Amino acid sequence: MAKISTIGILTSGGDAPGMNAAIRAVTRAAIFNGWKVKGIYRGYEGLINNEIKDFTSESVSNTIQRGGTVLKTARSEEFMTVEGRQKAYDNMKANGIDALVVIGGNGSLAGAQVFAQEHDVPCIGLPGTIDNDLYGADSTIGYDTALNTIVECVDKIRDTATSHDRIFFVEVMGRDAGFLAQNSAIAAGAEAAIIPEDQTDVDQLGQFISRGFRKSKNSSIVIVSESKKDGGAMYYANRVRTEYPEYDVRVTILGHLQRGGKPSAFDRILASRLGVAAIEALNEGQRNVMIGVSNDKIVYVPFSKAIKIDKPIDKELINVLNVLSI
Amino acid sequence: MAKISTIGILTSGGDAPGMNAAIRAVTRAAIFNGWKVKGIYRGYEGLINNEIKDFTSESVSNTIQRGGTVLKTARSEEFMTVEGRQKAYDNMKANGIDALVVIGGNGSLAGAQVFAQEHDVPCIGLPGTIDNDLYGADSTIGYDTALNTIVECVDKIRDTATSHDRIFFVEVMGRDAGFLAQNSAIAAGAEAAIIPEDQTDVDQLGQFISRGFRKSKNSSIVIVSESKKDGGAMYYANRVRTEYPEYDVRVTILGHLQRGGKPSAFDRILASRLGVAAIEALNEGQRNVMIGVSNDKIVYVPFSKAIKIDKPIDKELINVLNVLSI
Amino acid sequence: MAKISTIGILTSGGDAPGMNAAIRAVTRAAIFNGWKVKGIYRGYEGLINNEIKDFTSESVSNTIQRGGTVLKTARSEEFMTVEGRQKAYDNMKANGIDALVVIGGNGSLAGAQVFAQEHDVPCIGLPGTIDNDLYGADSTIGYDTALNTIVECVDKIRDTATSHDRIFFVEVMGRDAGFLAQNSAIAAGAEAAIIPEDQTDVDQLGQFISRGFRKSKNSSIVIVSESKKDGGAMYYANRVRTEYPEYDVRVTILGHLQRGGKPSAFDRILASRLGVAAIEALNEGQRNVMIGVSNDKIVYVPFSKAIKIDKPIDKELINVLNVLSI
Amino acid sequence: MAKISTIGILTSGGDAPGMNAAIRAVTRAAIFNGWKVKGIYRGYEGLINNEIKDFTSESVSNTIQRGGTVLKTARSEEFMTVEGRQKAYDNMKANGIDALVVIGGNGSLAGAQVFAQEHDVPCIGLPGTIDNDLYGADSTIGYDTALNTIVECVDKIRDTATSHDRIFFVEVMGRDAGFLAQNSAIAAGAEAAIIPEDQTDVDQLGQFISRGFRKSKNSSIVIVSESKKDGGAMYYANRVRTEYPEYDVRVTILGHLQRGGKPSAFDRILASRLGVAAIEALNEGQRNVMIGVSNDKIVYVPFSKAIKIDKPIDKELINVLNVLSI
Repeated sequence: MAKISTIGILTSGGDAPGMNAAIRAVTRAAIFNGWKVKGIYRGYEGLINNEIKDFTSESVSNTIQRGGTVLKTARSEEFMTVEGRQKAYDNMKANGIDALVVIGGNGSLAGAQVFAQEHDVPCIGLPGTIDNDLYGADSTIGYDTALNTIVECVDKIRDTATSHDRIFFVEVMGRDAGFLAQNSAIAAGAEAAIIPEDQTDVDQLGQFISRGFRKSKNSSIVIVSESKKDGGAMYYANRVRTEYPEYDVRVTILGHLQRGGKPSAFDRILASRLGVAAIEALNEGQRNVMIGVSNDKIVYVPFSKAIKIDKPIDKELINVLNVLSI
Repeated sequence: MAKISTIGILTSGGDAPGMNAAIRAVTRAAIFNGWKVKGIYRGYEGLINNEIKDFTSESVSNTIQRGGTVLKTARSEEFMTVEGRQKAYDNMKANGIDALVVIGGNGSLAGAQVFAQEHDVPCIGLPGTIDNDLYGADSTIGYDTALNTIVECVDKIRDTATSHDRIFFVEVMGRDAGFLAQNSAIAAGAEAAIIPEDQTDVDQLGQFISRGFRKSKNSSIVIVSESKKDGGAMYYANRVRTEYPEYDVRVTILGHLQRGGKPSAFDRILASRLGVAAIEALNEGQRNVMIGVSNDKIVYVPFSKAIKIDKPIDKELINVLNVLSI
Repeated sequence: MAKISTIGILTSGGDAPGMNAAIRAVTRAAIFNGWKVKGIYRGYEGLINNEIKDFTSESVSNTIQRGGTVLKTARSEEFMTVEGRQKAYDNMKANGIDALVVIGGNGSLAGAQVFAQEHDVPCIGLPGTIDNDLYGADSTIGYDTALNTIVECVDKIRDTATSHDRIFFVEVMGRDAGFLAQNSAIAAGAEAAIIPEDQTDVDQLGQFISRGFRKSKNSSIVIVSESKKDGGAMYYANRVRTEYPEYDVRVTILGHLQRGGKPSAFDRILASRLGVAAIEALNEGQRNVMIGVSNDKIVYVPFSKAIKIDKPIDKELINVLNVLSI
Repeated sequence: MAKISTIGILTSGGDAPGMNAAIRAVTRAAIFNGWKVKGIYRGYEGLINNEIKDFTSESVSNTIQRGGTVLKTARSEEFMTVEGRQKAYDNMKANGIDALVVIGGNGSLAGAQVFAQEHDVPCIGLPGTIDNDLYGADSTIGYDTALNTIVECVDKIRDTATSHDRIFFVEVMGRDAGFLAQNSAIAAGAEAAIIPEDQTDVDQLGQFISRGFRKSKNSSIVIVSESKKDGGAMYYANRVRTEYPEYDVRVTILGHLQRGGKPSAFDRILASRLGVAAIEALNEGQRNVMIGVSNDKIVYVPFSKAIKIDKPIDKELINVLNVLSI
C-alpha cells in the first residue's frame, strides 16, 4: 500500500446542502493528519480539465453554513469513457494526488468505483444527495435539509389551502426514491403521499379516495414524488379535476429550491463526521468504500453495495401516515 | 349618520400573510372603542350564507404571527349579483352589523364599493394582497412577506445555479403588476426581471441578452412575472434553449407558497396600523374608503381611485437592477 | 388487564417543539383505534384540578407545525404528594380515563412511574425535552429543533464575530447534558464546546487555549453548556478577559428562545411515530414504559432505566470537533 | 472640483445586515460609471494601516445575501486624532483614492464629517446601523432585518410563554433609540414596550400595570430597550418579582444575534438603491452628505443634520401598541 501524502477532493452530480461541510471536514481532517489537500473543481470534469487548486484550512473557513458546493459540480460525459478516465488519472498523478475523496450520489460513486479499479487509486466516497437512495447509509448528506425545506414550503401552502378549502398536489424531488415524499408528508401533516416504491399495481390515488377522501376536512395536501413514468403531480391533479369536478385543485412543483439553502444541523454534523471518518479510513488503508453512518456508527460500505442494493422505505412510516391522516 | 355599535369583518379574494394581523387589529381596536365585532367567514360568500360568529379579544389571540386568514376567504360569484348582495345586506342587518371592514385586493374592494352604494352601508377597505397593485397605498398587506419568501427561494436556487453554472428562469406571482418581480430581482441579485409594465413593445429578453448576457458570469437568474399573455418563465426558457442551445437552462415556478408563511415584521406593523386606523375612520364618520399608508402616514383613498388608477413602478428601481447586474 | 376505551393525554415539565405533533399523533391514533381521548391541561396540575376536555381529530388539526404545547404545561408540586396523586387518580376515574400518555422529560416520567405504581394505572411516557437526556431514546422530541435554533443563532453571531474579530462565548441549554452544546458546536463550526460531561477535573478552557487558541483565526466562538455550578459562559468570558486582556470578548446567553419555534421535520416525524407507537403499545397491553426510537426502531424502555441511567456523549463527536476546529 | 476616477469604500462601527449589499452596489455602480474601486478593510483603522485591496465586480459576487461585512469593521481610536486622520489621508492619496464612501452609523458619519472638512475630501455616507437613529433616512440599512430577527425570536419565546403562563421581559438593542423595541413589540404582539424616548418622568412599567396588567391574559411579553441608565430588562423583571411575587417571570437578553443573519428583502433593496445613488451623487459633484431614502425618494442629508437631530418615534405607533395589547 502506497503511503498517502496528498488527497484530492471533489463534488459530483447534483449538489446537496452539506457538501461544503463535508469538504471542510475532509480538508481539515487531512491537514490535521499532516496531509496536503487539492480541491478539484466541477467534479470529474475538473479532474480531466485540470481545474485543481491547493486547499488550506482557510480555504474552507466560513463555509459550513453555505448551501451548494464551493468546489462546484457537474455531470461528466467524458469521465464515462476510458480515455476520459485516463486523462483524469494523468492529472491526478501530475498534481501529486495519492487518493481521492468523492462526494456525490449514485452516479458519482459508480464513477469512483470504475476509476478505482481501472487505475488502482484509493477512492473514498461520501454519500451526498438529497434523494437518500444510497444503501448502507441511514441518511445521505443533504437529505435532512431538503426534507425541512419541503416541509417549510408545504407549511406555507397549507396556510393558503386552509384559507381557501383547496386540494393541493405538491411535487417533490427524490428521483426513484420516495423518502422525501413519504417523510415530508408525515412531517407536514399531509393527507397522502404518492411514492414510486408503491407504484407497482395499486392505484394510490384511488386508495386515498376510497379511505374517505376529504371527509370532515375542508382542505387536503397530497405529496407526489417526481416521476418520469406518469407525469407526477400534474397527472393526479388532472385526474381529480376530471373525476371530482366539485373540488378546487392546485398544483405546485417545488423544483430546484429543494437543493439549496443552509444545511440543517443534522446535515452539518453528518457531513463533519463523514469527512473526518474518510481521512481515518484512508489512514488505516481502507479504499474504494463509501463511508456512511448507520445506527449512529461510522460504517464502510463497498461501492457495489451502496449503489446497487435498493434501500427500502420502512412500512412503519407508511402506516404512520395512514393513521394520522384520518 | 347612524351610530355604529357593531362591525363585521371579512377577508376576501386571494389570501395574503398579515391578514390575521389586520383582523386582530380591527377586532381589538373596535372592542377598545366599545363596539362589538362579528367575524364573517369565507368573505362575501359567508355574508350571504350567514357564516357569522361573535369575536372577542381572545378570538384573535396568538394569531398575529400566522399566515393565511382565520376567517378563511373565497371568491363569491353570487355577490356579483344584485340578489346576492341583497341577501348579504339582509344578513348584515339580521346580525346587527352596522359597518363592514373588508380586507382584500382589487376585486374585493370593487365589491365593497358597489355594496356600499347599493345599500348605504359604511364600508372600510384594507389593502390585503401580495400583488401590491392598489393605488394610494405604498405597500399592501402581504407584499413584503411575499417578497421575502421569493428572495429566500431564489437564494436557494442560486446555490444550485452557482454550483452548476446554470441559467434559471424563476416565475413569480403579481398578476398584472411587476412589483414582486422587479424588487425580488434586485434583492436576490438576479440578472434581470421581465415585468408586465415593460411588455409593450420592447423584447426584454433581447435587451437582457444584448446587454451582454452572462459575460464573465457563469450562472444567471432571471425573474419573470406570471403572465397569461405569453406563458411566463417557460416561454423565455424555451426561447433561450432554442436560440442559445449551449446554455443549461432550468425553470422554477414558485407558485402558491408565495401566499403563505408567517408575516414579516413590516406586514404585521402595517396591518396593525391599518386595523387601528380603520376603526378610527369609522368612528369619525369616514365611509367607503380604503385605508392606506403613504409616506408613512395614514391616508384615506376613495375605492374608485384605489382600484382604477394604475400604480407605476419607479424608474429608479429599473435603473438600479440594470446597474447592479453588470 | 382492564380493557381500555378512553385515554388521557398531558404534557408536563419544560415545553419542547414537537409536543403538539405528539399530542396530534396520540389523539388520532387513539381515535383510529376506536378509543376516546381526553386532553388534560397544564400537566399533572390539570389532572389534579380537573382541567380536562374531550379531544377529537379536529382538536389537533393544524397543530403539527406549532411550537409550544396546546395542552399547556406546568410543574406540579402537589403531584409530588400522595394526596395530590390521589386527587389526580380520582379525577382520572371520574372522567372515565383508563390510561395515561405523558409527554415530558425526566421529572415528568418519574411522576408517571410513581403514579402508575401507586394506582395501578397504565401509563405510557413519550420523551419530550430539548435536553436529549433520556436513556434508551436516541433523540428526544424537541432536541433536533433546539439544535437547529441554536445553530441558526450562532450563524448570526458568527457574522458579527467575523466582522469584528471577536471571541464569543455562547451559552446554551441542556441542564446536566452537553448534547446541545457539543453538537451545536460541531454544526456551527465553533472552535470549542465546554460541556458538563467533561467538567470533572480537566480545565476545558485551558485545554482549548493550549491547543493554540485563535492561532491563524481572527474570530472564535465557544459554546458553553448552562451550568449551576460554575456560572456558564459569563465565567469563561471573565477568565479570558482577565488572562488575555488583548482579546475582544462578548457573551450571549440564548435563553428561552431555544424552547420555541416550529418543530423541525425530524422532530415532527419522531413525534408522529412515537404517538402512533404509544397507542399500539397500550393496545398490546404494554404499560409503564417510555416509548423511544433507537437505531431507527421503536423500543420500549422501562421508566426506571429511561430516567436513571446516564446517556453518554459519543467520544467520536468530541474528536470530530477537536479535529475540525484547527 | 477634482475629477473622480477611483473611490474607496469602507464599513465602520457596529456591523449591520445589508452592509454587503451596499458594498456590492457601490462597487458595481462605480465600475458601471467607469471608475475604479478600492476596498478598505476594518473601517478607518484599515485606512490608517493601509489594508486596501482592488475591488472588481466579482469581488462582490454572491455577497448580497450575506450578513456581516466582507470588508470587516472596527471602531478606530486613532482616527479620532488629527495624526490618525493625517495617516488615513496619506494612504488615501498613495492609493489614488479620490473619494470615500463610508457605510456606518452615527459615529462613523461623524468621523467622515471631520475628515472631509480637514482634508477637503469628497465623502459620501450611507446609513448602516440596526438602530435606525439617523435623521433624514426613514430607515437605516440593517434595521428591517434586525426587526425581523427580534420578532422571530419573540415568536419562539411566546410559544414557551404561552405554554407556561409566564411573563417575559425581552431586552433588545437600539442604543438610545426605541425603534427596535417599539416596532418589534407591535409586530410580535407584545403587551408593552419600554423605550428610552419615553423614560423621562413617567414610570412605563407602572403605566402598563395600571392599564390592567395581565387581566384575562395568562402570559405577557414586554420588550425593553437596552439601557445603560437603568439596567434594562433585568431591572423590570426584578421589580415585578418584588412587587408581584405571584407571577412567574423570565428574562431574555437577545444580544448580538440581532446584528447578524441574511438581510431582508427590504434591506437589500434599500442598500442597493443607496449604493447606486452614492455614485450618482459623487458623479454630480455632491460631497459630505449622507444618502437616505425618505418618502421612498433618494435624499441628500448633510452630515451634521443626520447625526445631530433626534429622530422621533411616531406617536401613532405608541397608540397602536396600547390599543392592541388589550
